[in-house]
Formats: sequence, C-alpha cells, structure tokens
Amino acid sequence: MLRTDIKKKKLFITNNFDRDWVVESSSAAKNCKNYIREIVDTLDLQPNPTKDVIALSIGDPTVYGNLKPSEETVQAVIDVVQSGKYNGYAPCTGYEQARDAVATYLSHDGARFSFQDIILCSGCSSSLEICITALCDEKRNHNLLIPKPGFSIYRTLAETIGIKVKYYNLIAENNWEVDLENLEKQIDCFTAAIILNNPSNPCGSVYSEKHLKEILGIARLHQIPVIADEIYEQIVFSKNKFVSTAALNLDLPILICGGLAKRFLVPGWRLGWIAIHDNSDAFSKNIRKALVSLSQRIIGSNTLIQGALPKILFDTPQIFHDNLINTLETNATMIFKLLKEAKGLLPYMPQGTMYMMVKVYLKRFPFEDISHLVIKLMEEESVFCLPGSCFQTPDFIRIVLTVPENLLREACSRMIHFCNKYCTTT
Amino acid sequence: MLRTDIKKKKLFITNNFDRDWVVESSSAAKNCKNYIREIVDTLDLQPNPTKDVIALSIGDPTVYGNLKPSEETVQAVIDVVQSGKYNGYAPCTGYEQARDAVATYLSHDGARFSFQDIILCSGCSSSLEICITALCDEKRNHNLLIPKPGFSIYRTLAETIGIKVKYYNLIAENNWEVDLENLEKQIDCFTAAIILNNPSNPCGSVYSEKHLKEILGIARLHQIPVIADEIYEQIVFSKNKFVSTAALNLDLPILICGGLAKRFLVPGWRLGWIAIHDNSDAFSKNIRKALVSLSQRIIGSNTLIQGALPKILFDTPQIFHDNLINTLETNATMIFKLLKEAKGLLPYMPQGTMYMMVKVYLKRFPFEDISHLVIKLMEEESVFCLPGSCFQTPDFIRIVLTVPENLLREACSRMIHFCNKYCTTT
Repeated sequence: MLRTDIKKKKLFITNNFDRDWVVESSSAAKNCKNYIREIVDTLDLQPNPTKDVIALSIGDPTVYGNLKPSEETVQAVIDVVQSGKYNGYAPCTGYEQARDAVATYLSHDGARFSFQDIILCSGCSSSLEICITALCDEKRNHNLLIPKPGFSIYRTLAETIGIKVKYYNLIAENNWEVDLENLEKQIDCFTAAIILNNPSNPCGSVYSEKHLKEILGIARLHQIPVIADEIYEQIVFSKNKFVSTAALNLDLPILICGGLAKRFLVPGWRLGWIAIHDNSDAFSKNIRKALVSLSQRIIGSNTLIQGALPKILFDTPQIFHDNLINTLETNATMIFKLLKEAKGLLPYMPQGTMYMMVKVYLKRFPFEDISHLVIKLMEEESVFCLPGSCFQTPDFIRIVLTVPENLLREACSRMIHFCNKYCTTT
Repeated sequence: MLRTDIKKKKLFITNNFDRDWVVESSSAAKNCKNYIREIVDTLDLQPNPTKDVIALSIGDPTVYGNLKPSEETVQAVIDVVQSGKYNGYAPCTGYEQARDAVATYLSHDGARFSFQDIILCSGCSSSLEICITALCDEKRNHNLLIPKPGFSIYRTLAETIGIKVKYYNLIAENNWEVDLENLEKQIDCFTAAIILNNPSNPCGSVYSEKHLKEILGIARLHQIPVIADEIYEQIVFSKNKFVSTAALNLDLPILICGGLAKRFLVPGWRLGWIAIHDNSDAFSKNIRKALVSLSQRIIGSNTLIQGALPKILFDTPQIFHDNLINTLETNATMIFKLLKEAKGLLPYMPQGTMYMMVKVYLKRFPFEDISHLVIKLMEEESVFCLPGSCFQTPDFIRIVLTVPENLLREACSRMIHFCNKYCTTT
C-alpha cells in the first residue's frame, strides 16, 4: 500500500492528519550521542553567587585568552586571504602543496611520508570519522577497541555508524599505560581497529617507545589496524619524549590522526589530517581508496587554512612551542603540588597534553558519587571540573591546564578548602 | 575462535602471514562513489596540442580568476583573523551570532527564521550529509527521491549510508520543471525524503511559486519531508524571481541547505547551513535534536568564516550580486545565441545558476555515445564539457557560465566548427 493510500484513508477518518505528523529520526542520529554533554546536562550546576566561576572543564586552550596562536600563524592566514588565490574548491583530500607540508612536518625520527599519504580533513574529529568509517563495518558486525579512560568522540563516531565499542583499560598507577593483557583479551574476530591515543586526553600520559612497541606488537600479531590519535603530538613535558607510532617503522598499517588544533592553538580553524603509515601495504588495495572516497562527502577543510598551512607548520618559531609547553608544565606542577594538600584527592602528574587526572577517594566524602561532589564543589566554591564518568572513569575528575595561573591557583585553593571541609580522615 | 588463534595457526603453516595482509574497506566506503569522476576518469581525454584547453566542465566559479569575492567579504575575514577572537571551538551548530545572521539573511518574502533554526556546517555538502543522515535510515529500508537530471552528491551521500535513491524526472521542454505525476509515482511507504534543487545544477532552472507549490503539495499529501538544496539561491536572471521553499509558508517540514559557496564566490571556505522550516512542528520532537547530534561529529565549520559571516552577508553590496548575475546572464545569452548555430545541438536557456544544458542529437553524429563525442571534441578542439551521463541524462552536455567571455566565445566557435563538421543534416 502506498503511503498515499494510508494517508488518504487517515485523512478521510480524521480530516486532520497533520496534528500527528512526527518525523522519526534515523538510527544513526539516535545513536550519535554526546556523552560528555549527557552527563553534564544532568548536573544541576548552580555556582556560589559570591564567587566567580572558574571552569577547569573546558578543553579549549583559547578560551581564557592567555594562549594565542603565533604571530606567524596569524600572518600566514592574512597573507593567504589577501592573495585571493585560495577561495575555490581544493581537491577533497587537500591541496597537494598543503598535503606535502604535512608530510614533511610529520617526517621526523625515522618516519617518512609523502603527500600521497596525507589527507586533509575538517578538523581532527573529521579525520577520526573518516578513519573509523573506512575501517569499521556494521554489516560485518565489527567492533572498535577504545581506551578507558578515553575521549568520548571515538564512541560517538563508532556508534553513529552502528559499530560497537569495546574498552581496553589504562592503568593509572602505571602512568596510564595500556593494560596489555586486557587489550589482548578484548580482541576478537570482529575487531576492526584499535584506537590508540598518545599523548592522551584525559590522562596526560606520554608513552615510551618500548610501551608503544608492546601495544603495536599485539595489534600486529592479531592483524588489527591501528588508528593513532596523535592530536597532542609534541605536547610533552621535560624528561618525556613524544614518539609517533610512525617512527617505530613497524610492519603494521596505521592511520595517524592529527591537526593544528592543540599544538598551534587554533581548534576552531578545523584543520585536521590523516597520515597513512603502511609498511606492509595492507591498506594499499582498499583503504587508501576508501579514505579518498569518504573525504569527498564534505570536500575537506577550509582552503584559506590549507593555503597558510606550510607557513603555519614551518614558520612558527620553536620558542612558541616551548612557551606553550612551559606554561602547561608549570601549571601542572603547581596544581600537582597544591592538590596533594587536599584531603581525599590524589593528583596524577601528567607527562604532557593539557590535562591532569585527579583521583577522588569518594568513600571519604559524604557524597553519593562524583557527580554529587562536582555539583557541591560548584555550589560552594564555583569551581567546575569534569567528572571522570565523562571518560568512563568514575573515580576521577579531569582538570585542564590551560587556565591562567592565578585562576588555577585560586581554584586549587578553593578545592583544598572544600575537600578539607568534607573529607573525613581514614 | 579468536583471531589470534586463526593467525597463529596460519603463522605456523606459512610463517609469513604479512604477505597477504589486506585490510578490507567498509561497505560505506565502497558505496561512497564519485559518479562524475567515475565517468570522467573513463574518458581518454587528449587535447589537441595546437589549441589551448578550455574547460567548460568545472563547477568552481573562481577557477579562471575572473570572479572574485567582494572586498567587503575579504576584509571581514581579515578583521576577524586580526581580532584573535575566533580561534577557539565554536558550538557544533555554530556561533549564535553567526547563526542569527543567517536567520536574518534568509528571512525575506515572508520566510521567518530564528538562530535556533540554523545549523552551520562545513560547506553545503556537509549540510546535505547531515540532513540525509538525519532523515534516512537503512534499517527501515528507506529510499530518497532525487531529481534527474541532478547533482550526483545526493546519490553519493545516500548510498554511503545504505540508502537507495529513486529518481524523479525533470522535463527539459518545460524549463526543467518536475514531472509531477512521475514524482508522485516514485513515492512509496519507504520514502524518507525528497530532495528538491532550486535553482538547479545542472539545469539552470528557477521554479515559479506556483510550481513549487505543486511539488510541495505532493510532498505534503504523502507526508514526506523535503530537503531543499538552495545553494544557488538568488542567482537568477532577469524576468525570473527566486522563491525559497520557506517563503511559501506551507504546513510541511523542510530542511533548506545553502551556504556562501556560489553567491559569495568562496566555495573553498566551506561555510554551509541548514535552515529548519517547520510550521507543522513535525521536526520538533526528533529531527531538530538529530541535526544537532550529527553536527557534533565534526564540530561544524571554520570559526574565522563564522566570525566574518554577519559582515559577509550584510555588507556585501548589492552591486556585487548584480554584477555576478549580469556576467552569468550575458554569458548565457551569448552561448545560447552562438550554439543555436551549431548543427546537432540544442541549447536550453537557463533561468539562473552557473550552468547551461545543451541537448545533443546524437543520431546525427557518427559517435557511439556522448562520451565519444566529448572525447573527440577534446581531441580536435581542446574543449571539454561534462557529459550529461554525470547527471543521469545522457543526451546532454553541461556548460559552465563562469568562464571568461572571450574563452566562452572561442569555445563556442570551436564547438560550432566541430558540430558542423560531423553533424549530418536530418
């Protein structure tokens, strides 16, 4: 029966079929959830009206105005806008010149890329979306392994296309290294890919070459491709070294996702990339083509930023990068030291990125759960931290390191006051 | 059996399992085809080395350098870059101020929008992707109705998520109006949406209010939501008037897709929008939420362009828009007049947009099909037109109107020479 007939019949009966015209959304849309928002929206956050709110929750380094892109970055974009040469469509995968710049930028410590290995995307989220969509297939009952704690976008992107996620554990006490046994246990014959996030949001961990080899060794043994989210590449504190998965030069196909957002402090510009590292040629037959095909759905990223990309990547002075890391490390060290004085909290010193995880000994507080604590902290001290449940780790809170030092200090002082008030000694 | 076991076994047998490690791509990636490229890539295009190539095929108005964005547009972006205020993340749906500007811009001729009805996207392709993904569900065996001739992106986006497309005919002799009977015949109980493209690529048609009401009346009768691709809004020639689907103010839920690409001559900037027009509230319960959810996968469009959006939309002087239309209409009139002199061709005068369709009386030529003719035209005259098969209409070629006048004139002259050489009189 045609819908006409149904509707005509209905019309005949009620003469007012519009009243109940409700358009259903697709399964994809229903499954596309913002897990952080879902949690935060359930929190009844009412700050203390006598104290200014300090948000330690926002993963946008530019939000307080203390961290800005380099002058070279800004000038590069202005030059490109004024040139008038970058207003038309670029190829879906990006201008060859811009892809070439990313290839050169990523070719260090033994890693080698050509422009053909690079696909530019509308931000690193888009890079991840394309990689997950290329590798994971609902029709083959695929699953995707993601870290716990981990950033919720992986789950959102996977579930939107009907892919089940399975978590592998990171060990807090071990600088958030991967629980290798647990990782291997999660792998089954439906596992399409492993997401590896190094340096890690929310953990702030930076993996050693040895540990990366252990993780990738498992992926290789089971022939599971890896999606390496390296958006925090190079944002590592002193005594640590960033090692890209590509630098290990293993016989394992890897899609590296990155972009300008964090290291160059321009998350709104939406310039991400996928770098294909594939010594084994496992991606040559299908996946390279798949990535190109999928990139044509939205025709890549903004051409002005693409045009400016070579200058952004190569003319930004080292001192800019050093200053960013110094700021983050100084803040991390300060918070770590201060929060050790807060009863019932245990800060974990990060090795890089823009975040610190802080364990909460919940049993020592008169709160039902972390959400309750987070609400009370806001209500009394006007300080807001993301509950670890946003990252599948309910015993923690996450603090951002990009907030100006004086605000961070004040926030810590309020948190100490709060904890010392409520925490009972063990 | 775990994949480990399979592989270990294999390893034991061959001791070289890497040789055959080929990663399969997903169904989505396999179904994500670029139909224009698939056709063009099969053409063995070898230009005549003695004549400069004139490409009448490229739908990028900026490619020849004769059409540029307004000074106001360029300055607005420079101001925003220099302000340093638009480097962070915007909300996934866009800055409220930018959404508000689009709402005001689209509120004319009786249409009314608020910022809450607007979602900013990474180009109009992304707008279409989000709309199709929100409304169409493979699990419910949905299909999507799209125009023939029509732009191939609709099919690409639908098939990627497992949605079957069904074509409804446009009638060339009737200024490419919709064959209403044919449209109604395509509707079945699995039809999730109708794509309406007005003004149309490739047809250059601009529908009257009366005809739009006829089309939307059918959609309303069958309770099928409409996705109105209005990316060529306002690009209409004298004697024609652009009527947005929203201006009709009908009791029918419509998602209008548009953006800066064509009218403001900046396709590479990737600023598109979805405008929700929904008098019947059929979208309120599910679809509004679905659009917001899906927009968070890639976190919207470039923030610099968002920041400049109010000035781009409101400070670009009318003379800029008038000049663009004058150029396009002058070119269209010239080509129309010239190609009428070409034997075996029948140009259709467009009412707007950047394209003209030209019918080819193939039986009068010694060529197997349009592709053969297109190849020969390139080989002898170095003129390249897209074969109509790219738009599901094999009897036509499409010519772009954005090429500089002298080149267009030269191209027409070569085409006339070519046709008059090969065409036999009836």
